[in-house]
Amino acid sequence: MSGNTFGKLFTVTTFGESHGPALGAIVDGCPPGLALSEAELQRDLDRRRPGTSRHTTQRREPDQVRILSGVFEGVTTGTAIGLLIENTDQRSKDYSEIKDRFRPAHADYTYHHKYGLRDYRGGGRSSARETAMRVAAGAIAKQYLATQGIRVRGYMSQLGPLEIDFKSWAAVDDNAFFCPDPERVPELEAFMDRLRRDQDSVGAKITVVAEGLPPGLGEPVFDRLDADLAHGLMSINAVKGVEIGDGFAAVASRGSEHRDEMTPEGFLSNHAGGVLGGISSGQPLIAHLALKPTSSITIPGRSIDVRGNPVEVITKGRHDPCVGIRATPIAEAMMALTLMDHLLRHRAQNPDVHVDTPMLR
Amino acid sequence: MSGNTFGKLFTVTTFGESHGPALGAIVDGCPPGLALSEAELQRDLDRRRPGTSRHTTQRREPDQVRILSGVFEGVTTGTAIGLLIENTDQRSKDYSEIKDRFRPAHADYTYHHKYGLRDYRGGGRSSARETAMRVAAGAIAKQYLATQGIRVRGYMSQLGPLEIDFKSWAAVDDNAFFCPDPERVPELEAFMDRLRRDQDSVGAKITVVAEGLPPGLGEPVFDRLDADLAHGLMSINAVKGVEIGDGFAAVASRGSEHRDEMTPEGFLSNHAGGVLGGISSGQPLIAHLALKPTSSITIPGRSIDVRGNPVEVITKGRHDPCVGIRATPIAEAMMALTLMDHLLRHRAQNPDVHVDTPMLR
Amino acid sequence: MSGNTFGKLFTVTTFGESHGPALGAIVDGCPPGLALSEAELQRDLDRRRPGTSRHTTQRREPDQVRILSGVFEGVTTGTAIGLLIENTDQRSKDYSEIKDRFRPAHADYTYHHKYGLRDYRGGGRSSARETAMRVAAGAIAKQYLATQGIRVRGYMSQLGPLEIDFKSWAAVDDNAFFCPDPERVPELEAFMDRLRRDQDSVGAKITVVAEGLPPGLGEPVFDRLDADLAHGLMSINAVKGVEIGDGFAAVASRGSEHRDEMTPEGFLSNHAGGVLGGISSGQPLIAHLALKPTSSITIPGRSIDVRGNPVEVITKGRHDPCVGIRATPIAEAMMALTLMDHLLRHRAQNPDVHVDTPMLR
Amino acid sequence: MSGNTFGKLFTVTTFGESHGPALGAIVDGCPPGLALSEAELQRDLDRRRPGTSRHTTQRREPDQVRILSGVFEGVTTGTAIGLLIENTDQRSKDYSEIKDRFRPAHADYTYHHKYGLRDYRGGGRSSARETAMRVAAGAIAKQYLATQGIRVRGYMSQLGPLEIDFKSWAAVDDNAFFCPDPERVPELEAFMDRLRRDQDSVGAKITVVAEGLPPGLGEPVFDRLDADLAHGLMSINAVKGVEIGDGFAAVASRGSEHRDEMTPEGFLSNHAGGVLGGISSGQPLIAHLALKPTSSITIPGRSIDVRGNPVEVITKGRHDPCVGIRATPIAEAMMALTLMDHLLRHRAQNPDVHVDTPMLR
Repeated sequence: MSGNTFGKLFTVTTFGESHGPALGAIVDGCPPGLALSEAELQRDLDRRRPGTSRHTTQRREPDQVRILSGVFEGVTTGTAIGLLIENTDQRSKDYSEIKDRFRPAHADYTYHHKYGLRDYRGGGRSSARETAMRVAAGAIAKQYLATQGIRVRGYMSQLGPLEIDFKSWAAVDDNAFFCPDPERVPELEAFMDRLRRDQDSVGAKITVVAEGLPPGLGEPVFDRLDADLAHGLMSINAVKGVEIGDGFAAVASRGSEHRDEMTPEGFLSNHAGGVLGGISSGQPLIAHLALKPTSSITIPGRSIDVRGNPVEVITKGRHDPCVGIRATPIAEAMMALTLMDHLLRHRAQNPDVHVDTPMLR
Repeated sequence: MSGNTFGKLFTVTTFGESHGPALGAIVDGCPPGLALSEAELQRDLDRRRPGTSRHTTQRREPDQVRILSGVFEGVTTGTAIGLLIENTDQRSKDYSEIKDRFRPAHADYTYHHKYGLRDYRGGGRSSARETAMRVAAGAIAKQYLATQGIRVRGYMSQLGPLEIDFKSWAAVDDNAFFCPDPERVPELEAFMDRLRRDQDSVGAKITVVAEGLPPGLGEPVFDRLDADLAHGLMSINAVKGVEIGDGFAAVASRGSEHRDEMTPEGFLSNHAGGVLGGISSGQPLIAHLALKPTSSITIPGRSIDVRGNPVEVITKGRHDPCVGIRATPIAEAMMALTLMDHLLRHRAQNPDVHVDTPMLR
Repeated sequence: MSGNTFGKLFTVTTFGESHGPALGAIVDGCPPGLALSEAELQRDLDRRRPGTSRHTTQRREPDQVRILSGVFEGVTTGTAIGLLIENTDQRSKDYSEIKDRFRPAHADYTYHHKYGLRDYRGGGRSSARETAMRVAAGAIAKQYLATQGIRVRGYMSQLGPLEIDFKSWAAVDDNAFFCPDPERVPELEAFMDRLRRDQDSVGAKITVVAEGLPPGLGEPVFDRLDADLAHGLMSINAVKGVEIGDGFAAVASRGSEHRDEMTPEGFLSNHAGGVLGGISSGQPLIAHLALKPTSSITIPGRSIDVRGNPVEVITKGRHDPCVGIRATPIAEAMMALTLMDHLLRHRAQNPDVHVDTPMLR
Repeated sequence: MSGNTFGKLFTVTTFGESHGPALGAIVDGCPPGLALSEAELQRDLDRRRPGTSRHTTQRREPDQVRILSGVFEGVTTGTAIGLLIENTDQRSKDYSEIKDRFRPAHADYTYHHKYGLRDYRGGGRSSARETAMRVAAGAIAKQYLATQGIRVRGYMSQLGPLEIDFKSWAAVDDNAFFCPDPERVPELEAFMDRLRRDQDSVGAKITVVAEGLPPGLGEPVFDRLDADLAHGLMSINAVKGVEIGDGFAAVASRGSEHRDEMTPEGFLSNHAGGVLGGISSGQPLIAHLALKPTSSITIPGRSIDVRGNPVEVITKGRHDPCVGIRATPIAEAMMALTLMDHLLRHRAQNPDVHVDTPMLR
């Protein structure tokens, strides 16, 4: 299998460079009969779009998605769904200086060594723009999951050093940060303004939650639900860590504290984050991801050029001072795609299973 | 693809329950001509074996591995390699009480809901014993990687609340903890003795490192090296978090601090942990994993039985008070398997690549 | 994916050389709750076993299969099923002459060039014995298909130049040829006796039929049911051609004759062989396969050795003068495995489909 | 894995219906550094285009392909290649009658039962137009194979009852039939004219040949080169049979006649068709495919509608009276894609293999 495909039954294959004519994807394995339209996909794409606040990239990206196949008379046919987004704003000239230089902490150096050449315009294939197709494909998954009572939502739980407690889902879509506490927003904005003046950047932590899951999703021993989810989240540009439930806090926990006991009324806690033995328990599936600070900053950095000579590099152009600010819809998309794939996989093997044991939530 | 296979070109498919007659695996895609013998696999298995210290499980597991195919006159033939370990010590009677009960925080409840039935003896397929085959397969990968100058090693970097700094690789194999600092060992032993008296358990953090990697391994955008590695590590029983390089510490970092600058003499730091844009940079590949405290403890816990009635459960039998103590060889194996798979994948697509740019370390 | 795995959801991975200690397989993706025992698998293996008549190999192969995992209290658990057959009769010394020579029209030459070395004992991995595991795995598939009302059976439709018309299924298992017409058996036996005296061999044609299929199996556009079936059948040693329904006879047909018209009472013919647009129609699925004459004959043949010098080769040892005589159970197994895989794939994507249109047979 | 992807390392994923806005594909795994342009792809597409003779469909299909990613400054970058063909001529109104009826021997009935609904316009996803993307992707494969000295070409070897002997490759591209003997062309044209007057259709046999192959391609035991090739060819619309080398003629052959003996000067024959034990021998790879007569004819046929009532169906619109006439480029494409995939797979596992044994041709 090639690296541009995610999933085994519900698959997404993407293509497209940040400065090429278009981005596209093929989504295969979608069940037939699902109501689907471009408007639904566009909604999720718009959540992700830069230019919605002064804290994100000023590159204008209309990102209008077209559905080219797999939908007829408003519902999916079960055949492959082709998606396309034409690139309308590219401004190649911003990048001509970078042709022979490796921007420090970017993928330039590694792509060069892997392929022997690289598309040096912007981030090429390593650009964050390629995530637009993940969000579009994830929107299809979300639509179907919704018909099964499953809901996937995320929020920013930390911006740089500022930890953010969850207050409400309603707050999340009301600000550019996907911050779940409206009272923290001015503080976050002030922090970002100072950062921009420093010409620097910072990381972020995102929390994604899926509710309404049935128990039973996950394919031990290697394709555990949490393992596939970790794969999907770690594949997002700039992610350096993934946790399920308590994550690294579990290291110092005692077994007597960490375990989620069960009663007829339900689970008493959710340290596990919704996964037991690699299979969903029915509890909310909770994951956290750590995004590193972007390396596209205007503070000069030391690097080398393609001949090995030392150079100084300033990444001009239009950048996100905190890529984490845009990551929430992408993380939701990867969780939705993972769940969709596992829903179909579980169905394939276990249609005859009838369980009398009551299901806990 | 089924859940019992890991990898795409260098694949491992495993089978076997903790209380079944045998564990086995098929390793496919191994290049021909690699010197291989059962002794090499046995060495890695013995590192993992319980009973080597008073801090790990008292279940006796000789774990003698046989190579049944794919090796002729001492070298691999390029055909599928069959591995088998017969189970000699099972003691079913320890588990008969558990037939209709779900041990809290074990996979009993989720396996029951997924399959409608479960092998209740011990952990069945969810048992930690299944990792024996991962270690055996990982040993084959390690052998081949060694011929390419690549070395994979791990150590315990935290036991419960006790953080352990790295001192030397030589220390790691000299104690039962895989602790890289001999002076800390008495403290760890005392801690474990207290834990056993408390009838409780604790988590651990393991660090795994690969050195000697070429740049260029990884298949963007979804099968990034770090994404596949996260998948492999998260698939290990009890793992709740995975970090690459700085991991969650990157959240509060500044871009100007986090980025690893380059000079003709080499990289100036390794916050990235050896991966840039999902591709290896040639720097050491560094990952950390968080293991939760085992839920198999003798302190009673509240749970339900298969009819939904409340019960109290004590998990008798022989258990590891800290599964993390045995995890280091397993984590090394998963990293070796991931690297092996990516080495073959990179070769497949990029044999004609000649890069004049000097490679940094 | 490696070459030793067949299927995508219901997968079989095999290992084992004809002169190694054992053959084995892992079957993954089997639904839980299927009644399964070694006796059922053994029954199909015994049908395939040489030594049951004077027309097949005299090598004694007890072929006792063991189920090592995935079955508990007589039913499948949904986890990976490990199968093992120990090799008890190998007689290496028959093959020592062949170490440096390539037997003409065997895989020796090609394996040598692919891997740079080969296990020269018998056929190594290219031996027909490896099909024992296919039959064992196919038996599991047949068991499950039977619970869905699907039945897979095959017969010999041509032996060398002798074309055999179908008379009855009852006849098929009553002779060593899987011949569906008892009156032809003496003629076939006489033909084979003459062949053995000539020290030569001949080919065969096998016909396999699946009945009771639902319409809807197959995954266009590439994983059509007939395409996957052709893959499975062509992967059998010695197969040189595969037909579905009318096969090559369709070339000279007219559209008005070939098409299978439909009435409320059912289809009026089955030229298509049960597949339309790559999807099962509900009619019997009919495939034919052509097996070449075995090249393991005692008539000397010209060849070269590993240094490129001309040699004459006589393949001594015990051989089948017509490998096609044993192929029927293997062809049935490959059809069963293909159908099983497609049944699960169809289920994964189409559980919500309710079709009011009556189904034709 | 979904049904719209072909290949494992060099993969093609396609989408698009005959009456949708566009057809597209993503080709992944292409080595970097290959010179590629839209002109090269267009050339192969033009060979396939209807309207080039009075014997093929009169539907006008400009089929202009665009490369949307994966190529930079005239060479492939190693990242995913997106291809797009906008549909410009669809004429939906030809098909409105067919909404509730199943055209006999078309995929209407099976798609309806599989998905519960279907895009009834033209052939939808089951249309022969979807093969345009196969040809475009195959053109990329052909380009790369050419750099390795491998050439793939095909021709029509039988039209209905008329068997055609091979005379020259030069002749093949000089007529609309891909007929390798210019002297037969008037006869074929007359035959087709009569067929059109009869309002009927006929089948065809195509022969595809690959020359310049190295020995060693193929991945036993399931992904043999011939098995994967059979899969690819059988996945072409209307194919009912596949042969390698002598194919079904091998059934009546003797082993002493069929085997291809070897001398230091080379093989003495090629009954095997270039494959031994599932691996290429270095000899020309020869495959034949049987195409059924198209069922889209104007002679009325009996069928049923979606409620199960008997109806009479005439498929109006513009059709190919012999789909085989257009199949040659598609068969070449599938062979090229299969070889490309196997070339990469062989490279992945066997880079260290040095074989001193001379290679025969």
